[in-house]
Amino acid sequence: MNPVGWILLDLLVMFVAAKLFAEVCERIGQPAVVGEILAGVMLGPHVLGWIGVPSAGFTLAFGGDETTSGYAFDLVTGTIAELGVVILLFHVGLQTRLSDLTRTGTRAALVAIAGVVVPFGLGFSFMATVQESALVSVFTATVLVATSVGVTARVLRDIGAIALPESRVILGAAVIDDVLGMVVLTIVGAMAGTGGGLSLSPDALIRIGVVLVQTAAFIVFVVGVGRRMIGRYSVHLEGLRTPGAPFTVAIGIALALAVLSSALGLAAVVGAFLAGMILAEARERYQLEAQVLPLSQLFVPIFFVATGAQMDPMVLSNGSTALLAGALTGLAIVGKVIGGAVGAAGMRTAVGTRRTMAIIGIGMVPRGEVGLVVAGIGHVQGILNDTTFSALIVMTLVTTLLAPPALRAILANDPRLAPDKDGVVAGPM
Amino acid sequence: MNPVGWILLDLLVMFVAAKLFAEVCERIGQPAVVGEILAGVMLGPHVLGWIGVPSAGFTLAFGGDETTSGYAFDLVTGTIAELGVVILLFHVGLQTRLSDLTRTGTRAALVAIAGVVVPFGLGFSFMATVQESALVSVFTATVLVATSVGVTARVLRDIGAIALPESRVILGAAVIDDVLGMVVLTIVGAMAGTGGGLSLSPDALIRIGVVLVQTAAFIVFVVGVGRRMIGRYSVHLEGLRTPGAPFTVAIGIALALAVLSSALGLAAVVGAFLAGMILAEARERYQLEAQVLPLSQLFVPIFFVATGAQMDPMVLSNGSTALLAGALTGLAIVGKVIGGAVGAAGMRTAVGTRRTMAIIGIGMVPRGEVGLVVAGIGHVQGILNDTTFSALIVMTLVTTLLAPPALRAILANDPRLAPDKDGVVAGPM
Repeated sequence: MNPVGWILLDLLVMFVAAKLFAEVCERIGQPAVVGEILAGVMLGPHVLGWIGVPSAGFTLAFGGDETTSGYAFDLVTGTIAELGVVILLFHVGLQTRLSDLTRTGTRAALVAIAGVVVPFGLGFSFMATVQESALVSVFTATVLVATSVGVTARVLRDIGAIALPESRVILGAAVIDDVLGMVVLTIVGAMAGTGGGLSLSPDALIRIGVVLVQTAAFIVFVVGVGRRMIGRYSVHLEGLRTPGAPFTVAIGIALALAVLSSALGLAAVVGAFLAGMILAEARERYQLEAQVLPLSQLFVPIFFVATGAQMDPMVLSNGSTALLAGALTGLAIVGKVIGGAVGAAGMRTAVGTRRTMAIIGIGMVPRGEVGLVVAGIGHVQGILNDTTFSALIVMTLVTTLLAPPALRAILANDPRLAPDKDGVVAGPM
Repeated sequence: MNPVGWILLDLLVMFVAAKLFAEVCERIGQPAVVGEILAGVMLGPHVLGWIGVPSAGFTLAFGGDETTSGYAFDLVTGTIAELGVVILLFHVGLQTRLSDLTRTGTRAALVAIAGVVVPFGLGFSFMATVQESALVSVFTATVLVATSVGVTARVLRDIGAIALPESRVILGAAVIDDVLGMVVLTIVGAMAGTGGGLSLSPDALIRIGVVLVQTAAFIVFVVGVGRRMIGRYSVHLEGLRTPGAPFTVAIGIALALAVLSSALGLAAVVGAFLAGMILAEARERYQLEAQVLPLSQLFVPIFFVATGAQMDPMVLSNGSTALLAGALTGLAIVGKVIGGAVGAAGMRTAVGTRRTMAIIGIGMVPRGEVGLVVAGIGHVQGILNDTTFSALIVMTLVTTLLAPPALRAILANDPRLAPDKDGVVAGPM
C-alpha cells in the first residue's frame, strides 16, 4: 500500500473509533467528546499503538528534528487534526453573535482575568515551594492558565447549552484566556535568559511590547473592520460566477485570519474563531453553518483522537510523577473553579448567582491546545524535565475528561434547557 | 510562524488562487477546472514558486527518500490534495446511479477497452520505432492508457452535462479505464526483469493472476453486496444516537473502500467512486450529496492546483523534449479519440451517432492521476529517463487542459442541455 493508503487507513481508524466510542458515551449519558478522547488514548502509541501520532501536537507546534517517515506521518495526521480544531472554532464562531459577546464582554474579561491570575498564582507558588527554579515555576504556571475553547465549546454545543448566558461568558472568557495564555507565553519566552533564571533586558521588554500591540491591533481590526464589511457581504458576492460563492469566500476569510493570527504568534484557532464571529453577522449565516457542519463532523473527531493519543496512562505508575500530576491537576481545577467563580460573582440569572458561578467555574476547567503547545515548547527548550512535562500532559487530559461530565451533571436539571422525550438533553443537530 | 501556520498559508494561497482563476475562466466561458490547473502552474515551483509541491503526486505515490522538511510539507499538501480527489470521486459516485451504469455497462466496457488498446498500440509502436527498449516502450504506452475520471467528471458536472447518456458511458469507461490502467501497470511491473528487458517468469504470472482475481473480487463484492445492504441502510441507522449518523456512516464507507482499494494495489479513487455509487442507492442520497458538496468545494480545488504545480512550462524550451512531448501528446489525443469513438460506434442518441462518437472520443482524452502515478513509478525505478518523464507530464497536462474547452465547444449548442438566460450552460449548483 502506498503512503496515501496508509494515511487514509490512519484517518479511517481514528474516525471509526471516535464515532464508536462517542456512540457508547452518548448511550451512557456522557458527552461524545469524552468518547473521542478515550478512543485516542486506546488507539494511541502508549496503549494499542494502532495510529502513529505519539507527539503530533508538540512536533507540529515548533518543528522538531525527526526526519523519519514516522515524523512525516505524524505531521500529516497532526495537520489534519489541526485543521479539525480550526474548523471547530470557526463553526463555534459562526454560532457566536458579536452582539451577544459584547453584551457579556466585560463579564467575560473579568472571568478570563480572574481565571488566569488564580491558577497562575497557585501553580507558581506550588512549584516554588517544591524548590523549582523561577523559570520552571513560571513556565509550569503558564501551562495552567489557558482554558481549552475547543473542549468547552464542544461540550456546551453537545448538551444544547450554547445559548445560555453562562455559555457566552465561558466562551468569551476562554477565547480571551487563549489570547492571554499566548501573551503570557510570549512574555515568559522573552524573559527566559540563556541560563536558568529570568531576565528583563530592554530587548525582552521591546519584544513584549510588540506582541501586546500586535495582538490588540489584530482583534480591533478584525472585529471593527470585519463587522462593517460583512454587512455588505451578500451584495459583493452577487456578481460572482463561482458556484457556492458565499461558502467559498467564508472559507477564504477563515483560512486568512487563521494564518494571520499564526503569523502574529497567536494560535490559529483565535483567528478562525474571530472569522466565524464576524461571519455570524452575515445574512447567509444559517446556510454557512449548515455547510460547515459536514466539515466539522469529519475533521473535529480527528483532533480529539489525536489529543487523546498523546496520553500515556502508564506514566502514572511512577510514584513521584503521579504525585506531581495529582497536585498540578488539583491546583488546575481548584484555581480555575475559584477564578471563574470569582470573575462571575454578582451575575444575575434565572438559576441564581451561586449556581451561575459554579457553572462558569466548572466550564473554565478544561485545558487543551494552548496548554499542550506551551508544555511542548518548555520541554523542547529543556526548561521542563520529563516528569514535569508528563505531569502537565496528565493535568491537561484529566481536566478535559472531568469537565464534560461535571458540566453535564450541573446542567442536567437546569430549567432553561428543555429535555427531549427520553429525558436526555438534546444536542442542536 | 509555526509549521501549521505555514501549511495553512499554503492551503490559503492554493484555495484563493484556484477560486480567482476559476472565476476568470467562468467569465470567459471556460470550465473552472482549467483555471484551477493554470493557478497551480503559476503558483508552482517552476513559475512563481509560492507553494511547495514540486513533486507531491510522485513522492506520495511510492515513498521517496527525501527527509527534508520540504518533503514533509509536500507530503502534507499532497495528502490534502489526494483527499480532494478521493472526495471528488466519492461525490461523482453519489451522482452515478448503479442502474444507469449497468444500463450503459456493456457500452462503457467497449469504450474503455478500445480506449485502452488504441493508445497503447500507438504509444508502443512509436516508442519502439524511435529505438527505445521494449520495457521503456511498454511503460510509456501504459502511461497513455488511463483516462482521468477526476477531470472528466468535473468538466461534465461543470457544464451540466452529467445526465447525458454519453456522460454515463464516458464516466463508466473512465472508471473501467483506471482499473485497466492499474492492471496493466501491475502486469508491466511484474514483467519488468532486473535488466532492461521483459520477462514472463512463473512468479510474474502468479502475481498477475493474483492482482486480476483481487480486482475482480473487489468490484463484484462492493457492487453486489454493497447494493443489497444499502437498501436497508436507513433502517440500521435509526437506532444510533450520534448526530448526523447517515453522513458519518457514509464517510466511514468511503474511507474504508478507498483504503481497501489502495491495499489491493488499485488507486484509492476507485474505492471512493464505488462507495459513492452504492450510496447513490440509499434513501438519504440527496441529503448526502448536499453534505459532501462543501467538502468538495474546499478540497477538490487543492487537488487540481497541486496537479498544475507539477508542470514546468520551461521543459518545452529543450528541442528534443518538446518534440517527444508533442509526439506523445498527439498520439495520446488521437489514440483516445479514435478508441473512444470506435467503442461508441452504433450508439443511438438524439443528436446522432456521429456526434455521440465525437463527444465520447473527446471526453476520454484527459489523462490525470493514474497516468501521473505510472509515470512517477517508471521514473523512480530508472526505467523512464528525465526526457521521457517530462514529456509524459506535459502530455498529461496538455490533454487535461485541451479536453474541457473541446467538450464545452462540442456540447455548447447541444439541444439536450437547456441554456440559462445568459446563453451560458449552467452548472448543477
